Amino acid sequence: MGRTADYSRERCAIAASLEVVGDPWALLIIRDAFWGVRRFEDWRERLGVARNVLAARLKALVEHGVFEKRRYSERPPRYEYRLTSKGRDLYPILMTLTAWGDKHAYGAGKPMRLVHAPCGAEIRPKIACSGCGEPILPQDIRREHGDGPTVGEVFAHIGQTPAA
Amino acid sequence: MGRTADYSRERCAIAASLEVVGDPWALLIIRDAFWGVRRFEDWRERLGVARNVLAARLKALVEHGVFEKRRYSERPPRYEYRLTSKGRDLYPILMTLTAWGDKHAYGAGKPMRLVHAPCGAEIRPKIACSGCGEPILPQDIRREHGDGPTVGEVFAHIGQTPAA
Repeated sequence: MGRTADYSRERCAIAASLEVVGDPWALLIIRDAFWGVRRFEDWRERLGVARNVLAARLKALVEHGVFEKRRYSERPPRYEYRLTSKGRDLYPILMTLTAWGDKHAYGAGKPMRLVHAPCGAEIRPKIACSGCGEPILPQDIRREHGDGPTVGEVFAHIGQTPAA
Repeated sequence: MGRTADYSRERCAIAASLEVVGDPWALLIIRDAFWGVRRFEDWRERLGVARNVLAARLKALVEHGVFEKRRYSERPPRYEYRLTSKGRDLYPILMTLTAWGDKHAYGAGKPMRLVHAPCGAEIRPKIACSGCGEPILPQDIRREHGDGPTVGEVFAHIGQTPAA
């Protein structure tokens, strides 16, 4: 059950993100949350995921601050899960996964068309530099090593990571 | 070993992308390829990943057309793995994972600073609409359902998926 890779020795923001959302089902749970899903049974039906797996994923995503758990019924006690601002910031990751899958897996027959409502264009996201506004190309990136901690150290305060 | 989630019934470009790169280690293998890694032993040393796991991941990524396997030595026969254009198109996914990890996992003490060489700015990628150039916000996206196949149908021609 769950992920077998251990990223804890990495000093890398990509690995840190994957520690939170690189888990089986996590990004599809988050995708559905953007389309309005908030309740356990709705995810379970849409994803066809086992109850224990879904419960573990939601628990981990709450611990990581991606979802906030709110009680919406007192009797019986029922909860829903809402994306926090940290969770909503995962949107660009879903956009880039969508663009790659549309282009390289689906090609012509896309399963869904996403339209940018303000301008009416079909969405083909581009990654732009916030400094100059130009598209960012891999060959234009220079790395400067910092001194951040390992992924294991970053998440040491979290009792149970999604990998568990 | 490997992933336990089954996305084959999904009709979704995100799920299709995850079928290729949503696997433990896949995105870190691809990350290292962008930084110049091409050979088995170099990945193994950097990632601390088991040989059989790394071999399975590289094989699957070759089958999916993300890497091209090239012989670089005849005697003994030795191979290296180079990103194809399909593989290089994964770059935006790594950029958005980096941005989220920098902001929400690392905060102030980033493990690495990425500079956009042409303008000298530290990279904070933004997702812009290719139609109007404005940033894409989740609430501005309208979905129109298409008629694409399921993920299982998309990858039916591939003998062994990363999930196997």
